[in-house]
Formats: sequence, structure tokens, C-alpha cells
Amino acid sequence: MPQKVRIALDAMGGDHGPSVVVPGAEIALIRHPDSEFILFGDSALIEPLLVAHPRLKAASRVVHTDVAVKMDDKPSQALRNGRWKSSMWLALDAVKKGEADVAVSAGNTGALMAMARFNLRMMAGIERPAIAALWPTLRGESIVLDVGASIGADAPHLIDLAAMGGAMARVLFDLERPTVGLLNIGVEEVKGLEAVREAGRLLREEPLPHLDYVGYVEGDDIGKGTVDVVVTEGFAGNIALKTAEGTARQLAGYLRSAMTRTWRAKIGYLFAREAFRTLRDKMDPRKANGGVFLGLNGVVIKSHGGTDPEGFAAAVDMGYDMVRYELLRKIGDSLTRDARSAPRAIGGAAS
Amino acid sequence: MPQKVRIALDAMGGDHGPSVVVPGAEIALIRHPDSEFILFGDSALIEPLLVAHPRLKAASRVVHTDVAVKMDDKPSQALRNGRWKSSMWLALDAVKKGEADVAVSAGNTGALMAMARFNLRMMAGIERPAIAALWPTLRGESIVLDVGASIGADAPHLIDLAAMGGAMARVLFDLERPTVGLLNIGVEEVKGLEAVREAGRLLREEPLPHLDYVGYVEGDDIGKGTVDVVVTEGFAGNIALKTAEGTARQLAGYLRSAMTRTWRAKIGYLFAREAFRTLRDKMDPRKANGGVFLGLNGVVIKSHGGTDPEGFAAAVDMGYDMVRYELLRKIGDSLTRDARSAPRAIGGAAS
Repeated sequence: MPQKVRIALDAMGGDHGPSVVVPGAEIALIRHPDSEFILFGDSALIEPLLVAHPRLKAASRVVHTDVAVKMDDKPSQALRNGRWKSSMWLALDAVKKGEADVAVSAGNTGALMAMARFNLRMMAGIERPAIAALWPTLRGESIVLDVGASIGADAPHLIDLAAMGGAMARVLFDLERPTVGLLNIGVEEVKGLEAVREAGRLLREEPLPHLDYVGYVEGDDIGKGTVDVVVTEGFAGNIALKTAEGTARQLAGYLRSAMTRTWRAKIGYLFAREAFRTLRDKMDPRKANGGVFLGLNGVVIKSHGGTDPEGFAAAVDMGYDMVRYELLRKIGDSLTRDARSAPRAIGGAAS
Repeated sequence: MPQKVRIALDAMGGDHGPSVVVPGAEIALIRHPDSEFILFGDSALIEPLLVAHPRLKAASRVVHTDVAVKMDDKPSQALRNGRWKSSMWLALDAVKKGEADVAVSAGNTGALMAMARFNLRMMAGIERPAIAALWPTLRGESIVLDVGASIGADAPHLIDLAAMGGAMARVLFDLERPTVGLLNIGVEEVKGLEAVREAGRLLREEPLPHLDYVGYVEGDDIGKGTVDVVVTEGFAGNIALKTAEGTARQLAGYLRSAMTRTWRAKIGYLFAREAFRTLRDKMDPRKANGGVFLGLNGVVIKSHGGTDPEGFAAAVDMGYDMVRYELLRKIGDSLTRDARSAPRAIGGAAS
């Protein structure tokens, strides 16, 4: 039997802290019984919750700390007040020290990113980190990155994103040469797109060996699943992700109200209950919760701060998969290979 | 009886040209019988279609031109080849000359924007144009701008967008002081957001008299209808819009397949048919088709290029409403008022 997957949890992260993290971890544990957990945080809050979740209790240990990064702390504040001692830092540190294989936090993104960079450091050859999201599409799933690690991107950074996203798709979707598109808008000759155009030119002229660059894609291509990997800078990527989640919630709301408005609709709902259940799962943005931090020497998963146990469990599942598939090592390997084969494309000067 | 609304149509615009424009215009005419149309384009293509659409034929005249802007023409090419003579230019020119109240085109956005700026010119005090979309939300509708007229925005441009969007909301939604939010991502202290932060500071410290600035909003706030007006630069705005449309189509696809998978679901569908019809309308991105060009001396509506007659009709409806509510004059008025009351906020130097 292979070794267990060791998961470090920032139990204080997110809007609801341990009251979401503990039940969420138990849901994930039931799905992946070969997991074990270290929960970092206020043991006075965590321990009573563990009593109510005996399966998790049996598969975890608690490391107490009084210090928690607040959801509205700025990254600099978080580093100043929380380094060495906050639940977020300690979860990352467990990965650094090899005591855990992955850290999962629903804490504030900026602080988590700053601490992860500071503690785990960037992979060789990668300048800036990225957050990759797994996006459900009509064809299955795609990877979209960056969804908020940094804002703005020059051509070399976009190419780093393509390489990292391509590597992740290769491993996660088991593809030889995943298709990659650059997110763009359908307007030509508008100022401000130089970086996207330059990245497109480089990817065409000096192709990366392990991916199939297909050109520009637009916002509506994401849901279609036009490409396996959608590359964009973090501001637009984050807005795309949140907008899609908002739209899914909005349409689920329409559906609910349509199905309860008349007696005919209510009867229809009763007949189609099973179908609606499947549909609800597909429309539920919680199921796709969990962003993977890429470019760091360690696996870190960011869960939405406002999620519930089901959503947090999805983020833990993603961490589990990343470890089981050895994503980190494989991404590292293929980045090195890509860098060797197309040095100018990777290391090219900013446009 | 008030004067008719005179609508100039670029009959050659869009992926399908007259075969969508003509039936689309007839749908809009049936909804607004006090409309009349001028169709610019190839009369050999348009006239036979009009024979099949006698109502539209009775309410329109055709102005023949051989020249059409192509969907993939660059704006500079379009201007070079299509100025003075293309169907797109002539539709805009009809507005300029006062022969039409509004121009509607499904042609390429960049070309339409370039020709509109060149021919109609910018309103006094506005530097760059914007495209505003009417976005269906859980609370009704919101205005989102800019959805693709220009890329990147400094603080003064974001404030122009707030003023124009606020004026449009005041008129369209009949509100005294519409709420306005700046689209942002939930990460603090990340480089690249200076313009958004600076605009937020200015809107707080020197509030515009006709709007209620409520702070930052995120992508998922758009569908919730958190604010009446969502302000963003055009790249992120376009990606948000297209992503939401893509998500709506994706979920409609899930719904269709869920409702046909089992006999129980099919029976449920039959019972709830009416509810599904309402729902389909609400989920249909075609119903929200039509972007309003703001900041120009004239009303111009951009329809999606790939839309069908129903979608094109929605864009024509929007043009009709803009004229009937005298949006242009009222936006102009309130921009002037805003500029008088908060000169520094409107005319402030770029950050």
C-alpha cells in the first residue's frame, strides 16, 4: 500500500474557520481514506469539533497556535504578524519541512501567496507564481490560469503560464500535448494587447514541445472547452472565474424559482428530481472550488474563503490529487524540459 | 403621435449579413411598430429578403452600396477601404446627418468604433469611448461598462465611465442616484491596481452628485445585481461578458441533456414546459444582445456578430429604447452637470 497523503490544513482560514475546515476535511477523508491531516489553529476551537467528527479525529493531529491571519490583513501585515507562528504559516511550513505533502488554506489569498513565496520559494526559472483553476466545461474540464496571483503579465510571464498550465494538463488529463489558448478579446489593433500578441507570436514561432498552441480564445470559449489550457493574466482571469461562478448561481436561482412557481412545474420537478440533482451538481461552483498555486517548491491549494464544508472538501480533494499524481515533480520536470528546448521563448526579454 | 424612431441598419454587418439583419429588424418592428428603417448594403441581397418580410419592407428603404467592412478587417483597413461608402459608414453617417436617430451594426467592433469616432466624434469632455452592456441580474438589470471599446484605464477614464454609466442607469432604470461599483479582485497590495484604487479614492473624496459610489465589487457581484452600474476597463469587462455568456450556454446545455436522459426526466419536462420556456428566455444570452457605444455624439448599437434574428432584434430594441428615452441628450446633460460639480474628479490628471 502506498504511503498516505499527508495534508496540512490552515484550520483558521476562511470566513468560518474550523467550523467549515473540520467537517470539510472529514468529507474529503471519507472519499480518500488514505489521507491524514495536521490541523493548525486554536485547539480550543478545533478539538470540540473533532469530537463530533470522530473519523477525522482518528486520522489527524492538532498543532495549536493562537495566531491567525485575518481575512482582511494585507500581505505585509500578515507576514509581519503571522510569520513563524500563524496557522497559515505553520501549514505551509509543514510542507517546507516535509512533514506534509500539501497545504490547504481558505485564508486570504494575498497573505497565503506572500507567505508561500517567502517560505517555499519559487521554482527555478519561474519569476512569479500563478493560481490555476480547474474549470468545468461542456467537454470535461479545462485549466485556467492565472486566476489572481498577480496582475498584468508581459509576454515571458504568459509563456511561463502556458508552460505550467500545459504541464498540469498533461498530468491531470493524461494528454500528450494539451491544447493551449491565450485569452483575448475580439478586437484588433487596440492598444494594450502587446503582451498577448507578443506571447502569441513567440508560441507560434518557437513552439513549446509539450503543448499545442492554438491561438487566441475568448471568454465564451472557456465554458465550451475549446482548449485544455486557457492562459491569461491574473486580473482578467480572476474576474472571469468569479463572473462564471456568479452566473452559475444566478441561473441556479432562476431554475429554482421556475420550478416552484406553478403546480405543473412542481409536478415536473418531482418527476425529474434525479435529473435536477445531477444538474445541481454540475451547476454548483463549490464542486470546482480550489485553486492550485503554481511555480512554488511545494503544493499549496487555496480554497474560497466563503465556502462551506462541501466546497472545502473539494479543495482538499484537489490537494490529494496533486500529491497522488505527483504533479509538482512532473510540472518541475516538464518546465525544465521546456526551458531546455525553447530557451528564448521562456527567458525572452519583456516586450 | 410622436415622431417615428428612425433606425439605420448596417445590413451587411455580422457573420450572416442581411439574412439575419432583415428578419431581425422585422421582429423588432413588430414589437415597436412606430419604427422605420434605412437598410444600407447590397440591394441585390436585401431586396429579395424584404419580399419575404413585407411588414419590414413597408417600413423601410434600402440604400445600395457595394462596399462592406469585413469581420476581420482591421480598423485602419476598414477606414481606408470603407470610409464614405461602406454600409457601416453610411449607417453611421445617417445618424450624423440627422436622417436616422440611431445606427445598429453587427459588424466588427473595432471598425465600428473607429468609424463612429471618426464620423460622429467624441462628446465634449470625454476622451475615449466605451461600450455599455445591459446585464440581466437576480435583482433585474445592471449596466456594465466598458465591455471592450478600449483596453486599460487610468483613474480619470474610470471616473468618466462611472459618470456615463450612472447617467445611463438614471435614465434607463429611472433612478435618482444609481449605485456604482468598481470591478476589482479581492486581493490587496497587488501591483497593477493603482488606477482602480485611485479612482475609488477620488469617487469617495469628491463624490459625483448623481451617483452613489459603493466601493469595489467582484465578478460574482455582477450576476447578483449588487450595484446598478459596474465600472471596469474594457479588457476585463469584455472577458467578463463573454465568460458569462459562455457559462449561460454551458448550463443551458447541461439542462437540455439532463431533461432528456431518462423517461422520468422527459415526463417532468412535459409538465414543466411553461416554466422551462420562461427559464430558457432568462438564460438566453441573445436576449441581452446589444452594446451601447457611449461618449459619442450619436447613438450607436453594436450587436454580436454571430447572433441570429432574435438576437439582432434585441439589439434593435435597445437602439429604439435609447432614442425613445432620449438617452443621449440626458447622458450629455448629466455629464455636463457632473463635470461642473466635480471638475477635479472628472478632469483630474492621470495617476
